[in-house]
Amino acid sequence: MVVIVVKVILVYDISTETKEGVKRLNKVRKIARRYLDHIQKSVFEGELTEGEVEKLKFELSCVIDKNEDFVIIYKMPPSIMMERDFLTNTEDPSSNFI
Amino acid sequence: MVVIVVKVILVYDISTETKEGVKRLNKVRKIARRYLDHIQKSVFEGELTEGEVEKLKFELSCVIDKNEDFVIIYKMPPSIMMERDFLTNTEDPSSNFI
Repeated sequence: MVVIVVKVILVYDISTETKEGVKRLNKVRKIARRYLDHIQKSVFEGELTEGEVEKLKFELSCVIDKNEDFVIIYKMPPSIMMERDFLTNTEDPSSNFI
Repeated sequence: MVVIVVKVILVYDISTETKEGVKRLNKVRKIARRYLDHIQKSVFEGELTEGEVEKLKFELSCVIDKNEDFVIIYKMPPSIMMERDFLTNTEDPSSNFI
């Protein structure tokens, strides 16, 4: 069996104007943390198998509001040389090159 | 002169709890729109020269609060096959493959 691993960036904007929104945000973070590293307030990163990506997407789809929230998953080859520049004083959890 | 072009993803969380924060958010969006395409509430994408990236970073640095806000610029080779999955009903401004 060939297991394909991909680099993943998860970016979201969960509408937190209501209590339900705050709950959704907490659920999204809880799910994302099980799969990826928390990079910034609403950005997670990591390397996952295609199967894990599908599971992550399914779990997130169960808790988000498809009309109120915004969620994107970027997938790219794990070998890619990608540079990450923080313009703010966010702690960099890894090196600049990922 | 060799002009290096890179694919760019700009992701930000601007703290909008104060009036100043809302102003910063508007300024960030105004600057980002001059360089990149608006993909989602707080995500922009595009292809820029290294010089344009530096200008963008400089302009953003002038308006953001480095301790309150979170801003990341991802840079990667323009030839990369990157897949973008929207989990919500956000309009997809281009195709799934970018």
